[in-house]
Amino acid sequence: MELSFDSYGIKKMEDRKRRAFINSLSGFKSLNLIGTKNRDGQTNLAIFNSVFHLGANPALMGFIVRPDSVDRHTLSNILETSYYTINHVNKHIYKEAHQTSARYDTSVSEFDATHLTTEYKMNFSAPFVKESVIKMGLQFKQRIDIELNGTIIIAGEIQHVHCPKQCLAEDGFLNIERAESIAGIGLDSYHTTQAIERLSYAKSDKELTPIISNYSE
Amino acid sequence: MELSFDSYGIKKMEDRKRRAFINSLSGFKSLNLIGTKNRDGQTNLAIFNSVFHLGANPALMGFIVRPDSVDRHTLSNILETSYYTINHVNKHIYKEAHQTSARYDTSVSEFDATHLTTEYKMNFSAPFVKESVIKMGLQFKQRIDIELNGTIIIAGEIQHVHCPKQCLAEDGFLNIERAESIAGIGLDSYHTTQAIERLSYAKSDKELTPIISNYSE
Repeated sequence: MELSFDSYGIKKMEDRKRRAFINSLSGFKSLNLIGTKNRDGQTNLAIFNSVFHLGANPALMGFIVRPDSVDRHTLSNILETSYYTINHVNKHIYKEAHQTSARYDTSVSEFDATHLTTEYKMNFSAPFVKESVIKMGLQFKQRIDIELNGTIIIAGEIQHVHCPKQCLAEDGFLNIERAESIAGIGLDSYHTTQAIERLSYAKSDKELTPIISNYSE
Repeated sequence: MELSFDSYGIKKMEDRKRRAFINSLSGFKSLNLIGTKNRDGQTNLAIFNSVFHLGANPALMGFIVRPDSVDRHTLSNILETSYYTINHVNKHIYKEAHQTSARYDTSVSEFDATHLTTEYKMNFSAPFVKESVIKMGLQFKQRIDIELNGTIIIAGEIQHVHCPKQCLAEDGFLNIERAESIAGIGLDSYHTTQAIERLSYAKSDKELTPIISNYSE
């Protein structure tokens, strides 16, 4: 049976229910841990389900911050220091990743609270997550304030990328499923994935064919 | 073995390879078909892997358009008419969904070219995709131009939602996996999902517990 909700039906939902419902509607979400440091050197780690691809050349990523949320340290640290890391959540660390969304005292690093391990690479100032397999260092580029609802998009440029050799296909495709990265629904649901197939570049006068990825193992 | 790429290594990648690589890095992507009509009534349908949750109250979704891409009809139709639909891609229609990314003549609707079926609901002017199980009608709210790379974010408010009753948990969580919605990597890879679990709201002084979803079937 199909349910239909109009805008009145959505508005009159109880707040927490609407929040869970609307958060499920955009489709599967990326799950990443964003690592930062403030200018006193205190580390911070927070899970985000809103990291998105903004462009490949220059290599840009965006993510969304709600200023009233527990993400506020991530935002203030990035605005203070300009540097941050994005680390894929994988199936071995999803509980620790979820736990970073708790409100901790300012003096507590989520790295310590969740037993995820800081890792420093290539003289980059922001902390990576050792247990994460695919990770990037980024430099802050632009803050975009969305007047509609007071959210903020943070756009940054990728400075370096770390990933397993056996996940990178010769054509540049990175098989994040092989790295056991996972996907999310809504605010609290965690999902592994199973590849169906890759499809060839679509043309109006040609049939689609599967792409077989070649990995140089 | 871990590979590392710095910004120079990323810049010197061949264009198509960099595009595939950077597009894989944000994590799993939502897969949606956006349905529009121009003012002459011609329908258009295009796959997007960039639809994201922007806010729950009001219920807002965003997505990203590259002005030089084949998505241009989606953008111009939304700016012309203000209304559009977002339809989840599921495992039964991913090939048709992928095929909508081909460049068709202006006179050809992607609905006709791919044999996906237009569906009109609740007097909403934009076409839904009949074969999609979870779908929304949206009203255009704001265009946000990203100076960094010329991309555009289109933000819209959800006007109505259609979903199967057996996917909606009592707490508002919508189990899009039950509706066979799928996830993507990069530009061309399609993936089904398998739930691990839902986790309770994180608190600094409590252990996480699984949430068992109750469906009123």
